[in-house]
Amino acid sequence: SSDSTTIRATLFPGDGIGPEIAESVKEIFKAADVPIEWEEHYVGDQIDPRTQSFLTWESLESVRRNGVGLKGPMATPIGKGHRSLNLTLRKELNLYANVRPCSSLPGYKTRYDDVNLITIRENTEGEYSGLEHQVVRGVVESLKIITRQASLRVAEYAFHYAKTHGRERVSAIHKANIMQKTDGLFLKCCREVAEKYPEIKYEEVIIDNCCMMLVKNPALFDVLVMPNLYGDIISDLCAGLVGGLGLTPSCNIGEGGIALAEAVHGSAPDIAGKNLANPTALLLSGVSMLHHLNLHDKADQIQNAILNTIAEGKYRTADLGGSSSTTDFTKAICSHL
Amino acid sequence: SSDSTTIRATLFPGDGIGPEIAESVKEIFKAADVPIEWEEHYVGDQIDPRTQSFLTWESLESVRRNGVGLKGPMATPIGKGHRSLNLTLRKELNLYANVRPCSSLPGYKTRYDDVNLITIRENTEGEYSGLEHQVVRGVVESLKIITRQASLRVAEYAFHYAKTHGRERVSAIHKANIMQKTDGLFLKCCREVAEKYPEIKYEEVIIDNCCMMLVKNPALFDVLVMPNLYGDIISDLCAGLVGGLGLTPSCNIGEGGIALAEAVHGSAPDIAGKNLANPTALLLSGVSMLHHLNLHDKADQIQNAILNTIAEGKYRTADLGGSSSTTDFTKAICSHL
Ligand SMILES: CC(C)[C@H](C(=O)O)[C@@H](O)C(=O)O
Ligand SMILES: CC(C)[C@H](C(=O)O)[C@@H](O)C(=O)O
Repeated sequence: SSDSTTIRATLFPGDGIGPEIAESVKEIFKAADVPIEWEEHYVGDQIDPRTQSFLTWESLESVRRNGVGLKGPMATPIGKGHRSLNLTLRKELNLYANVRPCSSLPGYKTRYDDVNLITIRENTEGEYSGLEHQVVRGVVESLKIITRQASLRVAEYAFHYAKTHGRERVSAIHKANIMQKTDGLFLKCCREVAEKYPEIKYEEVIIDNCCMMLVKNPALFDVLVMPNLYGDIISDLCAGLVGGLGLTPSCNIGEGGIALAEAVHGSAPDIAGKNLANPTALLLSGVSMLHHLNLHDKADQIQNAILNTIAEGKYRTADLGGSSSTTDFTKAICSHL
Repeated sequence: SSDSTTIRATLFPGDGIGPEIAESVKEIFKAADVPIEWEEHYVGDQIDPRTQSFLTWESLESVRRNGVGLKGPMATPIGKGHRSLNLTLRKELNLYANVRPCSSLPGYKTRYDDVNLITIRENTEGEYSGLEHQVVRGVVESLKIITRQASLRVAEYAFHYAKTHGRERVSAIHKANIMQKTDGLFLKCCREVAEKYPEIKYEEVIIDNCCMMLVKNPALFDVLVMPNLYGDIISDLCAGLVGGLGLTPSCNIGEGGIALAEAVHGSAPDIAGKNLANPTALLLSGVSMLHHLNLHDKADQIQNAILNTIAEGKYRTADLGGSSSTTDFTKAICSHL
């Protein structure tokens, strides 16, 4: 069924509402004639010793082979002795940058209508080292690790992104007034990279001040780059400005150009299987994937159909205040293609 | 000049606009017949070896002796070999909890009109340990330290605050899904204290999700308690919701009931000495100090005068979109007493 122009991409439908929203993506991509053939992989029911998690080695190999993938929400099974599925993907595929475009959706009203920024998060180290230690009972410590290699890599990604996406400014977010050595190294790397991009403005903003400015006037920001935990916090904050994780795409970039796009919202087990889920975040993540594949026309076509459907307001899922089913919302998007 | 009912309190006017806004506080407190005699202390021009900072030992002794103080902005002088003035105060006075009430100001419009929460930040440990280390060139680490003692102490303060201030719920903010040992210990301590306060609801919210909820619907929150860095971030975020650090009070609580209230905004050297500064944050911090001294009537009287002056809108400083001088704004508040 695949011809020479078909691109193979890995699809992890994920848990809970994952399969339904993945179905919606497949349908819309098909209706838009996107030349993608999906290779579906599921979360296993056994721990794969090669990944120490419920994700199988074969499914990771699929992303490595294809170079691109799309991932639905995955609920990490409760219990000990295995790694979180999200962290397994980041570590095993060396997904070093998490990129989240965040823009006000025309037609979906929040307190903000002027958000148009990109958060770029270092995704492999920092506070996520996993190194923790009990010194004595009642005294515990955890290690934050910042390396020159990972900081340069994500900074380079951010400036390159800014340059190739017509963005004007990169803001490095930090707390180097307190963590002078770790966040200091991160800033030093950003400054080094900034010198190579004289056409892109560069500034440094302390994280607490950044959060205050974001809620007062998000239009002040363009591209933000930051260590892992700050990225975790700020990307969710920014998603909140435009409506939440159900509406915002995410894409992870790995070494060798791998891209794994993902919906970062939860698996919503309470509404799973009920045809109520909103596929927007997974769809927009699919759109990021298409951009990554240089299928910009298809990407724009699908993105416009999604935004127009939401703006029109006739078909909206319950989380957006409507009463449409997932399948009706999907059909409405197809009709806007 | 002091009689038996006079309370002595330390005043650090601070740098930049500090002296002007401290003058405003003194005038308004006098007009309201607050029985306080100020003991003024200044930041020194030499490093005091006993504090390793420009704050003298005598000025810290003054707060210890009086038990209460009010602090304007202090610009930490640039250079090496000394500690930040804010951190010196926290360490030397063991100011373990930073309390910031954050409410929408009637009459001062932002995107939010429904904020009414209190952030309570652990103020002595966590990411602020000051322990950093270069492993090899290009690899640095910093240590976050969480102790049972400090976590119980701030949790106890938060629940006691909730109970004595008619608050319903305490939310502990954390990232224990990643930092299981450190943030896990913090949560364990919060749970232990929660058991002693069955009348106060208790919940745990992951920091990224908390920031998203705060910008979507801050009315969901009541009292928030958290480790140091999360407190730093979230308290500024919340200040941003209601207008910024120029409008929000802060009070640090230390062992033995010490209270050091402070304006947490900067010293604004660009407008210093020009009679343009907004004294509101320092005034409201002074109001927190009065509550701490159980001078609730005086506190309410002054707070109402401030809020009414701002709401009336006739006298506002430039940062609030007006053109009043500090002294005219101050007189207007006095006339509302
Ligand atoms: C689920 C959790 C481990 C994860 C993180 O902290 O990175 C999530 O919040 C995210 O942003 O992808
Ligand atoms: C100035 C800085 C060291 C300080 C902090 O990080 O605690 C400030 O942001 C605060 O919140 O008081």
